[in-house]
Amino acid sequence: MQAEIISIGTELLLGHIVNTNAAFLSQKLAEIGIDVYYQTTVGDNPQRLIESIKRSVRRSDIIITSGGLGPTVDDVTIEAIAALLNRRLVLNKTVLKGVKAYFKLRKVKFPIETMRQAYIPEGVKWIRNNVGTAPGLLVEYMGKTIVCLPGPPREIESMFVKDVIPYLKKLGKSDWVIRSRTIKTTGLAESQVDGRVRDLLKLKPPTTVGIYAKLRHVELKIMTKAKNEKAAAKAISGIEKKIRGRLKGYIFGYNEETLEETVAKMLIKKRLTIAVAESCTGGLLSHRLTNISGASKYFLMGIVAYSNEIKEKLLFVPEKLLNRHGAVSGPVALEMAKGIRSLGCTDIGIGITGIAGPTGGTKKKPVGLVYLALVTDNKQIVKELRFTGSREEIKFQASQVALDLIRKNV
Amino acid sequence: MQAEIISIGTELLLGHIVNTNAAFLSQKLAEIGIDVYYQTTVGDNPQRLIESIKRSVRRSDIIITSGGLGPTVDDVTIEAIAALLNRRLVLNKTVLKGVKAYFKLRKVKFPIETMRQAYIPEGVKWIRNNVGTAPGLLVEYMGKTIVCLPGPPREIESMFVKDVIPYLKKLGKSDWVIRSRTIKTTGLAESQVDGRVRDLLKLKPPTTVGIYAKLRHVELKIMTKAKNEKAAAKAISGIEKKIRGRLKGYIFGYNEETLEETVAKMLIKKRLTIAVAESCTGGLLSHRLTNISGASKYFLMGIVAYSNEIKEKLLFVPEKLLNRHGAVSGPVALEMAKGIRSLGCTDIGIGITGIAGPTGGTKKKPVGLVYLALVTDNKQIVKELRFTGSREEIKFQASQVALDLIRKNV
Repeated sequence: MQAEIISIGTELLLGHIVNTNAAFLSQKLAEIGIDVYYQTTVGDNPQRLIESIKRSVRRSDIIITSGGLGPTVDDVTIEAIAALLNRRLVLNKTVLKGVKAYFKLRKVKFPIETMRQAYIPEGVKWIRNNVGTAPGLLVEYMGKTIVCLPGPPREIESMFVKDVIPYLKKLGKSDWVIRSRTIKTTGLAESQVDGRVRDLLKLKPPTTVGIYAKLRHVELKIMTKAKNEKAAAKAISGIEKKIRGRLKGYIFGYNEETLEETVAKMLIKKRLTIAVAESCTGGLLSHRLTNISGASKYFLMGIVAYSNEIKEKLLFVPEKLLNRHGAVSGPVALEMAKGIRSLGCTDIGIGITGIAGPTGGTKKKPVGLVYLALVTDNKQIVKELRFTGSREEIKFQASQVALDLIRKNV
Repeated sequence: MQAEIISIGTELLLGHIVNTNAAFLSQKLAEIGIDVYYQTTVGDNPQRLIESIKRSVRRSDIIITSGGLGPTVDDVTIEAIAALLNRRLVLNKTVLKGVKAYFKLRKVKFPIETMRQAYIPEGVKWIRNNVGTAPGLLVEYMGKTIVCLPGPPREIESMFVKDVIPYLKKLGKSDWVIRSRTIKTTGLAESQVDGRVRDLLKLKPPTTVGIYAKLRHVELKIMTKAKNEKAAAKAISGIEKKIRGRLKGYIFGYNEETLEETVAKMLIKKRLTIAVAESCTGGLLSHRLTNISGASKYFLMGIVAYSNEIKEKLLFVPEKLLNRHGAVSGPVALEMAKGIRSLGCTDIGIGITGIAGPTGGTKKKPVGLVYLALVTDNKQIVKELRFTGSREEIKFQASQVALDLIRKNV
């Protein structure tokens, strides 16, 4: 079974946005064992769109389009499908009701132009959009399946997982299972991870391992193609065991898991509470710690103390210490951690101070210098770190190391 | 002049990586006035690659391929081009010398498989790669131009800017300049913006307007193709003036500018300081306000008060008020704003309280309900808002409206 993806939107052809939908759809199709042979991007041009769909129908079994379903005149996918099928567009009252409800919920007057999104080619199945207003289409045409989805990633992701995957599975258009497992690490550079698993990176299909580096985060992805779930699981777990042995201590999660999720789970399980005093990260660590549902179980408070005054007044950092060592120093980070811990009456206190840049660095204290402290009942840890990158990258890396410090010490 | 882009690599079809090269190439081509009509992605499969190149040659003047030039057997672009041209591959000694020098510089033993990258179809021009080992190709074929570039973004970016753009310009395949300007708004839904500029969205080339919606953020992009810079600037400013007239008050920035940048600039210019008390946004507003270099000029402090106790103890929210109205209420948001303002001794105080979900909602106070307060010397504003989406989306939207509230009230 072969699929292809058509991404629709002049903004893609102009390079204004990066096509993340094609990667998402390809990945999801691979997971249910459907091969993608082509990804095509066309503009908001009915003629070239119809021509592309026709070509795809000739060479593939499943065609997934994304984009062009919005309420504006630029959006031409529905018209293209109607022209292809030679069907007229009819008002679908259920869709219209849904679109109206969408605006009512948001207390926004129903924009009359949105009416356009309730017109569907006659007799064609549609897919409910729970996140936006544009419905999707499920078209059976010349023995092939055409699925039309909207462009916004959160809409496409929700609809594809909820409705399209079950539909394709039911069609039986999937003979193989492709399964993957991502192992996420932090604390080692890409080359260090590479060095430890070099032999595995050279594996040939059906089971392969890929390495992907992000900021203070390196992932290994095991991928396998097998006849059934059991065989796939066996192939993956064999490799996974090897990787775990070689990267022990650096692995913080699997698949979609984030570092903050792992930390949150640990804190909840051990019934520990945390409070955070941030300077250079400016609230990012609190933000990440509160991105997890149920954060109030462990996260009690955060203070972003940008000025020395606040560090003294609220976090009880002694003025003398600030004068002697400067705000960006190990002793100040430690006092911040102690101060916030006693203020919040929590088990763990975190203090972060540093220079996020791009300005404010000196020869002795350059941009990227960060001090990180963790204080618990029986531990006091202070770390000096040096990061490079933009202001936001430095903030992110500092928050990443802080989360990892929590992970390793609770 | 029309161009198209062929991205080569099975990892793209598997969705393992997002295709940023296509966006980069499209953007660069647009800047020199070359239209891109198609982007296609194919795997490391010689037959489908040759077929795609042939189709592209039929319908476009310039074909840019990326990927498939590496040293492994998976890399088939050179062979495909040789087959298309019906030429044999010959060892290019200059390329070989460059590849060897690359490894010597890095103190790595020359890997014999890299030898493969020094073979070029006979008589074809090649492009030096200063960042990696794979050379590019410049092929003139049936009156069309085929440019083959490697896959790694930093290699493609360096080679395209250094060699390909000058080559295309010299070919005279670019007589035009394309210029664009993005106008960013918040506070109106996409359909509402659409309704106000519908006529402009229908404009035909050389000057067009596109609409792009993000979370609580709608952009209009004016794009023009003109003979020279002056004509382009004139065309854009004419349309921009119209848009400004119709969306006055909702526009917060242009091009790369972010809402937090605009707010930061205003605060710095007016020498105003701000302090932020957050509950449901969990530090995100502080994070965004401190993403700007020089944030310490205006941002003095933030408190993330997740518990009622902290709201009482640090922000002086009366216990009675919390009991009577609940933590998620207008009066509490207002007291939080007042409390943080007096604590930080700032000109502006912001209070945010709400339910970010996905749990914790009730019928009366559903997930997505957020109260926002702004307090200055002479203003006290409280807003009730209802958002939908994931926890992170609700947090983002609340921070977005908060920033816009600051923008409108300082």
